[in-house]
Formats: sequence, C-alpha cells, structure tokens
Amino acid sequence: MPSSEMNKQELSAELEQVLREYNNFKARNLDLDMSRGKPSEGQIQAALGLLDAFNSKSEYKTESGINTLNYGCPDGLPECKALFADILGIDASKIFVGGNSSLNLMFDYILQCYALGASETSKPWSLQGEVKFLCPCPGYDRHFGIAEYLGIKMIPVKITETGPDMDEVEALVKDPSVKGMFCVPKYSNPTGVTYSDETVKRLAAMETADDFRIIWDNAYCIHDLFGREDTLLDMLTECEKAGNPNRAVEFASTSKISLSGAGVSVLAANAENLAYIKKRCAKQTIGHDKANQLRHVMYYKDIDGVKRHMKALSDIISPRFEVVLNAFESELGSLGIARWSKPNGGYFISLDVLDGTATRVYNLCKEAGVKLTNVGATFPYGKDPLDTNIRIAPTFPSIEELSTATELLVISIKIAALEKYINA
Amino acid sequence: MPSSEMNKQELSAELEQVLREYNNFKARNLDLDMSRGKPSEGQIQAALGLLDAFNSKSEYKTESGINTLNYGCPDGLPECKALFADILGIDASKIFVGGNSSLNLMFDYILQCYALGASETSKPWSLQGEVKFLCPCPGYDRHFGIAEYLGIKMIPVKITETGPDMDEVEALVKDPSVKGMFCVPKYSNPTGVTYSDETVKRLAAMETADDFRIIWDNAYCIHDLFGREDTLLDMLTECEKAGNPNRAVEFASTSKISLSGAGVSVLAANAENLAYIKKRCAKQTIGHDKANQLRHVMYYKDIDGVKRHMKALSDIISPRFEVVLNAFESELGSLGIARWSKPNGGYFISLDVLDGTATRVYNLCKEAGVKLTNVGATFPYGKDPLDTNIRIAPTFPSIEELSTATELLVISIKIAALEKYINA
Repeated sequence: MPSSEMNKQELSAELEQVLREYNNFKARNLDLDMSRGKPSEGQIQAALGLLDAFNSKSEYKTESGINTLNYGCPDGLPECKALFADILGIDASKIFVGGNSSLNLMFDYILQCYALGASETSKPWSLQGEVKFLCPCPGYDRHFGIAEYLGIKMIPVKITETGPDMDEVEALVKDPSVKGMFCVPKYSNPTGVTYSDETVKRLAAMETADDFRIIWDNAYCIHDLFGREDTLLDMLTECEKAGNPNRAVEFASTSKISLSGAGVSVLAANAENLAYIKKRCAKQTIGHDKANQLRHVMYYKDIDGVKRHMKALSDIISPRFEVVLNAFESELGSLGIARWSKPNGGYFISLDVLDGTATRVYNLCKEAGVKLTNVGATFPYGKDPLDTNIRIAPTFPSIEELSTATELLVISIKIAALEKYINA
Repeated sequence: MPSSEMNKQELSAELEQVLREYNNFKARNLDLDMSRGKPSEGQIQAALGLLDAFNSKSEYKTESGINTLNYGCPDGLPECKALFADILGIDASKIFVGGNSSLNLMFDYILQCYALGASETSKPWSLQGEVKFLCPCPGYDRHFGIAEYLGIKMIPVKITETGPDMDEVEALVKDPSVKGMFCVPKYSNPTGVTYSDETVKRLAAMETADDFRIIWDNAYCIHDLFGREDTLLDMLTECEKAGNPNRAVEFASTSKISLSGAGVSVLAANAENLAYIKKRCAKQTIGHDKANQLRHVMYYKDIDGVKRHMKALSDIISPRFEVVLNAFESELGSLGIARWSKPNGGYFISLDVLDGTATRVYNLCKEAGVKLTNVGATFPYGKDPLDTNIRIAPTFPSIEELSTATELLVISIKIAALEKYINA
C-alpha cells in the first residue's frame, strides 16, 4: 500500500507489485468507457414505452384545442408546462418548453445576451469589451465550451460542500464586467454538491452588474439516488424576494429522465426575462416539437408518473455508484492518496487524486483500455491547475465493466501516487 | 362588373349591387382563416402513420451502431441524411440534420454570421456598421422577421417570372455592406416562381463581399401540385462551379411533408461552411432528436415513399388551389382589377389587386369574418409600398370554406376597385 511514510525501497517494491497487477489488466485488452454521463441500455429500455404513448390512434388535439401535429403554440403545450412546473416546483406561467436539448436553450440564451443584450435596454455583452463568467470548479465542460466559443473570459471559483465559495463570488461579481455565472445547483456536475439555502440566498441577493445573469442549470432536479434526497431552494423565487427578479434563468430537461436523444427541455424565468426570450424565439421558430411534448405528457401523466420512473432509474444507477464508491472505500479509504464525493443523486463522482497525478492516472487507464473523462475537462479551458480532478461517470458501463474499470482505476491511482512519492 | 370605362353613375350602381352581395356574406357571421400556410386536417391525417413507424418493438440502433435514443451523432443519422440527399438531389456529405424547424436552423446560422462572422476569418456582421440583406418581394414574412430582429437593413428587390430581377441584384451586391439575400428558389413564397437556370447561375457567379451569404430556403423542393413539376438547378453545385463555394447555405424540412409540428429539418452546405456551422452546433447541442429522424426514415423508407406521400398531399391541396384559381378566373379574369400567380407547386397564390386597394380588401374580408394574411406581410417591415399584394394560403380551410372565403374575397376586390374608380 502506497504511503508517504514508506522509504524509497519499500515504495519501489510496492510499485513493482502494483505494476504487475496493472500489466495483467493490460493483457486483457479492455475497451471500456467511463468518460461521459450517458444513460445505460437499461435506463433506455425503462423508457421505451414512451415511443408508444402517442400513436396514430391517439387524440392529437389537446383539451384546449391545440393541434399538436400542426404549427402553433410556440412556447409549449400547457399540459407539458404543467408537468415541468411540478418537476421544478415552480409556477407553469414561468415555463417555456423547448426541443430535446436544454444545452441548446442555454446556448441560445447566452448568445442572445451576447449579441443583443441581457434585456431590452441593456447593451450587448459583445459590445462591452472583455466580459467574464464565474465558473464554479470542478464544473461542467459543456458550460465552459459555450463561454469559450463566445470568447467570454472564464474565472474559476472554488466549489465547497455548500456550493460555490460565496465570499469569493461576492467579491468577484462587484466587477461590472462579470456578466454571468454557471451553476448546477443540485447534485452538481461533477461534485454532487447541492447548494445550501444560504448559498442560494446570497447568490440571489449579492451586488452585481444589472445585466449579470445566473445560468441555473437544474439538470439533476429530481435525480436522486439511494432513496436519499437533497433539497434546493427555488432560485427564481429567491431572486424575486431579493429584489433581483431578472437575475437567474433556469434550465432543465428530460434527457436523463426519459430518453437522452429524444427528450424535452424547458427554460424557466420571471415575466420580464421570459418575454424577452420569447420575443427572440418568435423570430427563431414557429414552435418546438409538440408531438414529443404530448408523448411525454401521455406517458408520465403527472409528477407521480415521473417519480415512479425516477425510482426505477435509481434502482439501475445506484448499484453502479455503489460499485465505484465501495471499491474506492475498501482500496483507497485509508491511504490518503485520493478523495471522492459521495453524492445523493446526479450522474457523477468527483475524484481528486494526489496533486499532479491526474493526467498520469488518465493515461495509465487509457493505455489499459479504459477511457476516463479528459483530465481538465472539469475546468475552464480544459486546464486543471493542480492536475488533480477526475470525473467518474458510472451510469453507462455494465456493473461488471464498471467493476473492472474501477479496479484498474484504483491500481492506476496507486501507481501514480507511488511514482510521485519515489520522485519526491 | 367594375371597369375603368364605366361612368360614375354606372360605377355607383354597380357598387350598390356588390355591396348587397357583401352584406349577405356579413350576415352569415363567417369565421374563416386564409392567413397562414398551414396544412389542413386531411394532410395531417395522411401522415398519422408516422407516429407508429418507430415504437417500443423497433430496433433503435442503426446498422452503423448508433443508438438513436441515447446521446451522440450530433449531425444527424446517416439514414436520415441519405433520405434528404435524395429529396434535395445533393450529396449526403453536405447535409446536417436539425430539429423540427428549418426556420430555427436559418435563424441560428444568420445569428452566427451576425455575432461571430460568416467564416472563421471574417469579421462579425454586427461589427461592420450598417449591414443589409436583399429581399426579393413579395417574399416570406418570417425571413424578414429575422433580419428586422437583428437590425439588418432590408432592401426589397423585385421578383420576376424567373426569380429576383438579376440586373438589380447584381448592381446592389457590389455594395460590400450587402451581406446576404433571402431566396425561396422553388415555388417561391408567395409568388410560386421557380428560379430559372440563368438566375441561379447569375446568383452563384455575381460579384459580392466575401462574407455575403445566400439563405437558400428550399422549403418547397418537392411540393408539386397538379402533377406538374418545376425544375431547379442545385445552388451549391453552381456556387462551386462559379468559384464561390461558400456563397449559399441551403435549408429544407419535412414540415410540409410529414407533420408541421413534428417534422425534421436540414441544412446543406459545402465543406467549409458546414465545418464552421458544425463547430457552433457542437457547442450548442449534444444532437437533435434522432428518434424523430429514425421515425421518418422508417415511415418513408426512401425517396419513393416520400414521393408517394407528396402525391397524396397534392391530391388534397391541388383541388383547393383550383377553387381559388377558378373563382379568380371566372369572376375577375376579364376585369383588369387583379392579377394572380398560377403556381405549379408550393403553398400560396400571390394576388395583386389595384394599387392602393389591398388594405381595403383585407379589411372588407376581415369585417365579414375572413382573415387574410396581413397586407404588407410579404414586404420588409410589413410595408407594401403600393398596397397591392395579398398572399392567399389555400391549404388550411376546407374546400367549402375556401369556396365561401374566395367568393367574399372576389366581392371585396370588386368593391375596393369600384371605390377607387369612383374616387379617381
């Protein structure tokens, strides 16, 4: 067992032993992928009924007379808004229903702020010189991808057990060139952290530029695991209470509820933001796919239907998380060479190995046939300054594959740690 | 019958007679809508089988191994690209498959050029001072809506029997602040004109700014009526031949093939434009709804399936066009108070009434319960300088409703003409 208290000889002997185990893995020609937060085959099969829920025999006009198969109803079916209102615990009047991708809704909203301004009266971000976004880290690479694409400077902010470090955030947003912030407030990607009530209230109340916007990506709003459940304050309400009603725009989708490739997304905002966004959408599209909205409404019927489905998914996902967490605990628990999150929901485990060894661990795994999320992906510009964080995505592989991959990962962590101690 | 050769007394007597007919209509409390190019119930029912084509028993992985229900394959299923390649008569490698709305693909592309530039190396349009788009008129109001939203100045260009007046276009595009042009090259909205080979070649070859782009909205590419068929040169090929490979980006969708609310859209472009567009899309979404792409592929199977469907739709739509065209011919044919298009396909009849009377005709119809497309909608900024054009959308009403609405329209045209003559 690697330990900082071993002498060089002991460390070398230990390394030799672990390398033997590693080479045994290499000989197996593995080809496993733990890199992306993708649902497994079982999760997809649990939702196949969705494909039958709306068929040629179904009533395709809603009670309110909307023909779901024709043009019209650009902001979404009332029935679909109602379902999402229950999922998010907000009023349906705040909801806009999009296509299959909440990332798409986010990108379009940020681009609207960038090219046309965050409100009717504010100057486009693109005309305000250098603008910046706060990025709680480790965080979600696709958020960072949007900012990088638009040339928005990203400022990393430390994420703690209660959400982003609010002292740091409050100091940084005083700079009027800071125009926004990415937040995954529940079961955060990848740390699993859920923002505390105090964090949410401070985010809602802090002093910022008028055209500062929080991208409230509530991607894992009802994605509990292990029968546990974190709670999160409603950000839109808190912003209203704090006198900053336009501060946050919320996003969610069924990509990790129903089908990743064929779900439904939503945006939620207060009246002024929503009107401003709908004004753009009215020029952008005649409306999103209402057949798929109705398909979801008919399949789930109501929030109880969604919750039953999430329970079934938890039964598939929780054991996968346990495989990883149990292996980490038993193999690394007492060694002091790694720390990891133990989330109550979401899609990821965030793993911190010894500083300066994450890339080595990634490469060791890769050479033995296990693909991890790129090191650095959880940081702006793909650069982890301490080379320490690895995002583990346990959902996609089978239990057996996951077990094998985690064994290899543990061995790789040990090798990298031993090498670091030896070269110290 | 109104005629410019009648004396005032004859005109007044005639007007009195036509007003009696008009008032009879008014007494019927009609509530008919000819304003939008929406499919009728029959067209929707013809496509209901689409809803069953892909169900829980179907193979949801493609032959190439793509899981259509999971993330991935952001530029569209190869099978779906192949189908659209046959529809558009171009190579599948040029195609990107989007969501349910080609307007959305267009808006996003134009916004990309506006906010980030038309290519990797060109300056955003938004940073080049006033920029302009050419708008063949009468044209499509939703195109004009995009330009107006972005503050792009619209320059109307006359549309002739062979497409936009190319002498005018060639002169205008010499101005480097002209950055683009909207074209509906086949069965143009609303004139029904299909661009001649010469027009296409001149558009491809003319001298323009480097970052000038033609929005080639091939919305009615296979939407023939009456068993007739116009032909259109492939714009992408012509641009390549002319040494301007990046000039045009093409758009189409199944909104008027399968289901308006739940179709599939495509964008087609040459390699450089496509790479540039895909670079944005890779940041914007993890991919569009592949289940709906597969649904379309399974329902139509191939281009012959699509063509059979279009024949069935033509059998529904053609008689509607005939109702309007026959009424115009028999009631207005010899009077010299209106001209109208006689298209071989598409969704519209373009009607020109006497200059200065279109608004009066619109209001007369409205007061008697028939909603026409807003006068001016077919021109930039909603302003028809001659107050002469009315777009007729015959698809949505039933034959009987359409017959009634056209009768009223004819009477309204006569009233407005008589009033004009009397006041002359």
